Amino acid sequence: MTQAQRKEQIYRAAEHLFSRRGYHATTMREIAATVQIEGGSLYGHISGKYELLYTIVLRASEQFRQATQEVLTGGGSAPEQLHELMRRHVAIVTASVERAAVYHHEWRHLEDEDQTLLKRRRDEYEAAYRQIIRRGVAEGAFVAQDERLASISILSLLNWTYQWYQPEGALAADALADHFYTIVMCGLAPRNDSERSG
Amino acid sequence: MTQAQRKEQIYRAAEHLFSRRGYHATTMREIAATVQIEGGSLYGHISGKYELLYTIVLRASEQFRQATQEVLTGGGSAPEQLHELMRRHVAIVTASVERAAVYHHEWRHLEDEDQTLLKRRRDEYEAAYRQIIRRGVAEGAFVAQDERLASISILSLLNWTYQWYQPEGALAADALADHFYTIVMCGLAPRNDSERSG
Repeated sequence: MTQAQRKEQIYRAAEHLFSRRGYHATTMREIAATVQIEGGSLYGHISGKYELLYTIVLRASEQFRQATQEVLTGGGSAPEQLHELMRRHVAIVTASVERAAVYHHEWRHLEDEDQTLLKRRRDEYEAAYRQIIRRGVAEGAFVAQDERLASISILSLLNWTYQWYQPEGALAADALADHFYTIVMCGLAPRNDSERSG
Repeated sequence: MTQAQRKEQIYRAAEHLFSRRGYHATTMREIAATVQIEGGSLYGHISGKYELLYTIVLRASEQFRQATQEVLTGGGSAPEQLHELMRRHVAIVTASVERAAVYHHEWRHLEDEDQTLLKRRRDEYEAAYRQIIRRGVAEGAFVAQDERLASISILSLLNWTYQWYQPEGALAADALADHFYTIVMCGLAPRNDSERSG
């Protein structure tokens, strides 16, 4: 196993333990035991538990940022961009529900400065959804009483996924994102018009 | 202050600290300091930290259970029941976002038997949404490709509320629930028909 592979293995062990037991309750000893190395040897790979938390949370944040940049600069109509961004989000979360759980729960244990960075990133991410919705409303592709609440609603669907999604289950990430997109676009009320988006 | 009032104050302090720092990282000493009593005196009111966690989580669970029982036995159409249940849910969460945070994050620290009870309660709660959606689909009031995903989507909106809702802000609980209901019913796509539910 290379140095890089070992480090990756340590991150995955930390994601697993932090997501189950929380950052505070997890010890370096447990992380070492999970990857089957001596406790002291961990420090040849990482500086400590905080580095693990910081890296896990920032990695997730970076994945979301990259998705928005690619989607926003990639062209397409507002509904197409919304659909694509929802697919990317679900793909990120379902690829590691454990990382997503750490991202959403354990950021509170980051130091103030790191929390500030993370909050800015999250605001930017939410702003990307508002931007798409605003454009869609302007172009007549969306109807929304309140852009912010519409954005929050969509993000709620996407974010909550890590709470219930079974990676070993039959529901593929894209199929789930498409279901979400249909609900967000069409709602539950029957439409008199024959055309349903999605 | 009566014995009951003091106990309530201890629960609120625990909700506050558990929601911010997590169950594991919170000490009885911190809880005592928050309510300004001697650490040892806490044990005159409660048996220990676990009782606090158990009571907070089960109280929230009980509130949700009561809401479904009242709504399901209260008559009304499927859309009316869905709307009312969404209002009740948002009211519970917004009344104490700290309790909701503990309910959603810290249940993992419950003992196995208590987790089993809690999971059963949550399954019953989700089943109530599925039941309302199934009835609505049968009566032609809803269109849903997948009842389970429709239920999960609605619960995602409702559950995520504690993550961003500002109790001191201008958005009232019922107004928020009504926004959610409109999104869930109508979606973002413009309707050719003049009638919009909600």
